[in-house]
Amino acid sequence: MRSTPGWQADRAGLRRTSLRRRELRADDVAVRVDYCGVCHTDLHAVRTHTGEAPLVPGHEFTGVVTEIGHEVTRFAIGDQVAVGNIVDSCGTCAMCEAGQENFCHEFPTLTYGGTDRRDGTTTLGAFSREYIVRDEFAYPLPAGLDPAAAAPLLCAGITVWEPLRALGVGPGTRVAVAGLGGLGHLAVKLAVALGADTTVISRSADKADDARRLGGHDLIVSTDERQMAAARDRFDVVIDTIAVPHDVAPYLKLVALDGTLSHVGHLGSVTVQAIDLLAGRKKLSSAGSGGRPATAALLEFCAQHGIAADIELLPSARVNEALDRLERSDVRYRFVLDLSDLPQNR
Amino acid sequence: MRSTPGWQADRAGLRRTSLRRRELRADDVAVRVDYCGVCHTDLHAVRTHTGEAPLVPGHEFTGVVTEIGHEVTRFAIGDQVAVGNIVDSCGTCAMCEAGQENFCHEFPTLTYGGTDRRDGTTTLGAFSREYIVRDEFAYPLPAGLDPAAAAPLLCAGITVWEPLRALGVGPGTRVAVAGLGGLGHLAVKLAVALGADTTVISRSADKADDARRLGGHDLIVSTDERQMAAARDRFDVVIDTIAVPHDVAPYLKLVALDGTLSHVGHLGSVTVQAIDLLAGRKKLSSAGSGGRPATAALLEFCAQHGIAADIELLPSARVNEALDRLERSDVRYRFVLDLSDLPQNR
Repeated sequence: MRSTPGWQADRAGLRRTSLRRRELRADDVAVRVDYCGVCHTDLHAVRTHTGEAPLVPGHEFTGVVTEIGHEVTRFAIGDQVAVGNIVDSCGTCAMCEAGQENFCHEFPTLTYGGTDRRDGTTTLGAFSREYIVRDEFAYPLPAGLDPAAAAPLLCAGITVWEPLRALGVGPGTRVAVAGLGGLGHLAVKLAVALGADTTVISRSADKADDARRLGGHDLIVSTDERQMAAARDRFDVVIDTIAVPHDVAPYLKLVALDGTLSHVGHLGSVTVQAIDLLAGRKKLSSAGSGGRPATAALLEFCAQHGIAADIELLPSARVNEALDRLERSDVRYRFVLDLSDLPQNR
Repeated sequence: MRSTPGWQADRAGLRRTSLRRRELRADDVAVRVDYCGVCHTDLHAVRTHTGEAPLVPGHEFTGVVTEIGHEVTRFAIGDQVAVGNIVDSCGTCAMCEAGQENFCHEFPTLTYGGTDRRDGTTTLGAFSREYIVRDEFAYPLPAGLDPAAAAPLLCAGITVWEPLRALGVGPGTRVAVAGLGGLGHLAVKLAVALGADTTVISRSADKADDARRLGGHDLIVSTDERQMAAARDRFDVVIDTIAVPHDVAPYLKLVALDGTLSHVGHLGSVTVQAIDLLAGRKKLSSAGSGGRPATAALLEFCAQHGIAADIELLPSARVNEALDRLERSDVRYRFVLDLSDLPQNR
């Protein structure tokens, strides 16, 4: 075993500790974690942590390969890489064969809080200086992408990219993005780059300038009943990125005939009135994470279009402050931790 | 005003009475109602009737034109016609212009329990000997369709036809129909005629022979966990026709990557776990009724393919028995009332 410094949950929040990492298997790469995004999932995990299993959050990160297993051919030492929220899958079920490892029938191994398929240990995340990952689940970071701003592409980005692609968003598609946060601001940038006519839906008019700066064509204030009524049946695709449980009915009303509301902001249950789907033959879908081919395609697309997250970079020692502020939505639009304040020891 | 005998709800069920009908407007036709299907909506309306407004059920019927308004050119006296659950709409909103009068922004006028757009009266349904309807909302009954067995096409049929068409069901599509009742048995016939590889999902194995006779290729017993597990992710489209509130999660599991569960069996709320949609990028939709072009297309399709409902024909005087037996699912697969036991008086 080897060790690395990282931020582990206890009752008071996250506390610096020394984590154990496995020695490299034949198909592993060791990654020096440079930047790791802070996701709502991390916040939720820390706030609901029971202490039963160790918790080190962090599942959207970039860094540099420092060591490779003896069978690894995809990477060399010094390569810049990115890793998302899945680090393994069965590789043989219909979903894995379709390149949708995120839907693996045996459930994919999550980057933290998952169970390693070979040794049964609980995976520990990338709020730490080193991560050991199976080479197939690391992605080359394309040249030209800023590694700090690119980190959130690996969870927030792919979560909105998959529905945008699956729903055929392209030139002329009328897309609305509800909620302008970590996921939402990337959904806007990606939809705009795909050629969609993109509208932001936000609780307040404050974000109108941001919406425009991100490339959005319009802003609808969700608390303004008149604006919402005027937008009825207007959008082919509504990406609902609101990160807390909420009534989806007002957003479903904005979906056009045969259009889709994609609910990506949080897990948990969603209740709809059948009549709200029926009236306009609308569809409800959900998304989260992505398969390996889609993740690689997203990174290439972002490099070509100069897309990355709008981030606030903090030294990893300020991770608890980042969580507190994320809880109040006080970030535009994603915190990224700079792990260089942790030493690279073994 | 004119009058016609019909079956009106009171505390004990439906009771024969004399209903008032409007004199024909310029664009009205008078229809002698010969056959009217008995829908779950009728049952629900009777069982939850509060007595506030008069209730005469019946919204899928066939009959003969007996009189026409002076501007009517689409029909002549003696024409066989069919009428469904919508008898008017605004005609000018985006949905009406798209031929989706069922989604009219001003809400379509329902065949019973609706509010007439011109005189404000409550519409009374077709469990009666005569119905007065705006000519645009009557459909010519194509030659070759049995008028009794065709009546259920106008509600049960169109309700499953719209999602089958909207979801692009055609040769090779893998379709499952959950629930083999009035809607379900028509969904099977229509899916088979569209060329789909069609499976029936039923609570009991009893319906295997019927499933085959209707053209289904397979039967899955929903209470058999092994069969349900083996069918995971198998179907592009699942049409859920189960007429009572139920957990949709087991049926969602059967939907393939990027497939859709269309929930058509009842209105009310539907709760899903986001993860059940997410895992396979599945969609939930709903449907009910249909627009005028789709209704006309359905009737033509059924005439070409020799499709109609499997019915049990009862004299209209036995309507309460029909409702009681429908409540116990004791019908294969749709009751149709024969209204010829009521006199044609004015």
